[in-house]
Amino acid sequence: MDEFSFIRSIKPDYYRQSSLIKGIDDDAAVFRPSGHDIVTAVDTMVEGVHFTRQTMEPEKIGHRVLAANISDLAAMGSTPAFYMVSITIPSNWSQQELECIYEGMKKLGDSYQMDLIGGDTVSGRELSLSVTVIGMVHKGKARYRSTAKPGDVLFVTGTLGDSRAGLECLLNPQWEKSAEITYLIERHQTPVPRVSFASHLSQIERITLNDVSDGIANEAKEIAEASNVDLFIESEGIPFSKAIRKVFPEHHEEWGLSGGEDFELLGSVPEEDWPQVIKAAEHAGVTISRIGHVKEKEGAAPVVMLHRKGKWETLTSSGYTHLKEKGD
Amino acid sequence: MDEFSFIRSIKPDYYRQSSLIKGIDDDAAVFRPSGHDIVTAVDTMVEGVHFTRQTMEPEKIGHRVLAANISDLAAMGSTPAFYMVSITIPSNWSQQELECIYEGMKKLGDSYQMDLIGGDTVSGRELSLSVTVIGMVHKGKARYRSTAKPGDVLFVTGTLGDSRAGLECLLNPQWEKSAEITYLIERHQTPVPRVSFASHLSQIERITLNDVSDGIANEAKEIAEASNVDLFIESEGIPFSKAIRKVFPEHHEEWGLSGGEDFELLGSVPEEDWPQVIKAAEHAGVTISRIGHVKEKEGAAPVVMLHRKGKWETLTSSGYTHLKEKGD
Repeated sequence: MDEFSFIRSIKPDYYRQSSLIKGIDDDAAVFRPSGHDIVTAVDTMVEGVHFTRQTMEPEKIGHRVLAANISDLAAMGSTPAFYMVSITIPSNWSQQELECIYEGMKKLGDSYQMDLIGGDTVSGRELSLSVTVIGMVHKGKARYRSTAKPGDVLFVTGTLGDSRAGLECLLNPQWEKSAEITYLIERHQTPVPRVSFASHLSQIERITLNDVSDGIANEAKEIAEASNVDLFIESEGIPFSKAIRKVFPEHHEEWGLSGGEDFELLGSVPEEDWPQVIKAAEHAGVTISRIGHVKEKEGAAPVVMLHRKGKWETLTSSGYTHLKEKGD
Repeated sequence: MDEFSFIRSIKPDYYRQSSLIKGIDDDAAVFRPSGHDIVTAVDTMVEGVHFTRQTMEPEKIGHRVLAANISDLAAMGSTPAFYMVSITIPSNWSQQELECIYEGMKKLGDSYQMDLIGGDTVSGRELSLSVTVIGMVHKGKARYRSTAKPGDVLFVTGTLGDSRAGLECLLNPQWEKSAEITYLIERHQTPVPRVSFASHLSQIERITLNDVSDGIANEAKEIAEASNVDLFIESEGIPFSKAIRKVFPEHHEEWGLSGGEDFELLGSVPEEDWPQVIKAAEHAGVTISRIGHVKEKEGAAPVVMLHRKGKWETLTSSGYTHLKEKGD
């Protein structure tokens, strides 16, 4: 592969963000944030760990790694602006395939007016993509996982477990491709980060957000610990797609709690602001489900409780539950 | 390795930058730049490509990958503020070794008051470190490679080729460790980015800077092309350390032009500001050498000319030269 021709092929023809001063033509990129706070995160995907050629076409690899990053920006309530990509290239990937990976990122980035402003290209034994994203948020308006308070409504966008289910379908390519299976695969390969929904929440004074990159059990635990509160989740409120219920009737509950990367948003908001959250979801074209509530911490450490089959169980961050008296 | 205990071990106890609002405890980091432009870059180092266990101890790997990134910030005239680290961990690296890598970054970062504000930890088959750095620069004060003008003095900090020479010493461990060899190895393993020097240039209206991460032949070409000018370099002006002259009398010129990553700064400045550049170097405790000058572009494309043994030759970006009439 010719590194220079590859770099030329992925270099943007123009930039969209008005705050950008210098893109990828110098030692570093430069931008001028006017009155905004800056939000930034980095995420890496490695071949054989996060995807294989079997589970992802090149363009989808690009989409997914950037989507995972943008989801972090959405969970902070920020607007995506820039991304940088460091790629490690093994000899068994062609320039055309690599260009498809960047094309997948570009298509998703374009839909948010994001600019590719930097990166690095190195050789190595396994394909790896490390993406840095930068977003802007109005001063003091970033959303944290530490702001949940007793009395809050607990909610989640979209449906859970679909990504994990889609992976299962991909790992069993002999299955007949029903509409449901196609849907689940799409949810695994090309998740849509909840940027639009998060942006419609800007009028709400206090709202807690966390992106579901590791099952809601883990994310709920993070909110509980960061906010020092107990969370109560009604298992009947957890949203599942028709597709996952039909294809995986015996697994969907487990995958919803602990399964892969749905990139939905889990959050909490005061009861009086809940109607506004519903409206934001409507505007963004996203379903939203009330799945529980926040209570004052009762024990020594914050816990997440799950109400299932008439009983309250504690939920560990791995999604494992065990029967336990409430507040133990 | 226990991922959670590893992450706990590398998490900072406190943060230093007053602009930081949220560090590594949420989906993304948040900071508030007050009246500054933001400078950002990413750089990746892969085991077996950029280092081996033979050429680098873990702490030095950490130092070097962050130094390479900080050098990019210095070349923009910006002050380092934050870094994020995405690490890919193979099973043959122990937690203790990994902690040493982060310790190497921390020590260097601490010397600039930098905060580690995010990152990612994934498993893979080869050790890889992808570092994102973020710096601040006063509005409109970033230094670009596109601002060189005819009449400018061309200069470079420090000495060149040492890093490449140090690598050679490391690849020949049977050599006796003289003071010179120790010096060259140090220059390869623990380069010092020229942040202090760059910060002392802030009063100069126009100065062009480019960091020497790939030999000055390549960097000079980048300045020439970005600024659309011709550069003239006197080979006798190129600074070499006593160590490289002594240990590699037959290679130092080639390595100075095209050799490894010295992380010095190559730049150009109007003649009248040259004394201020000398003063900045003195304040920063860095040597500085005038190595040539900038002229109007004579041919169709910008060129870099090298004066050697009484003749002008054109210098390609790979460091290869060939005899050619000036301006051909």
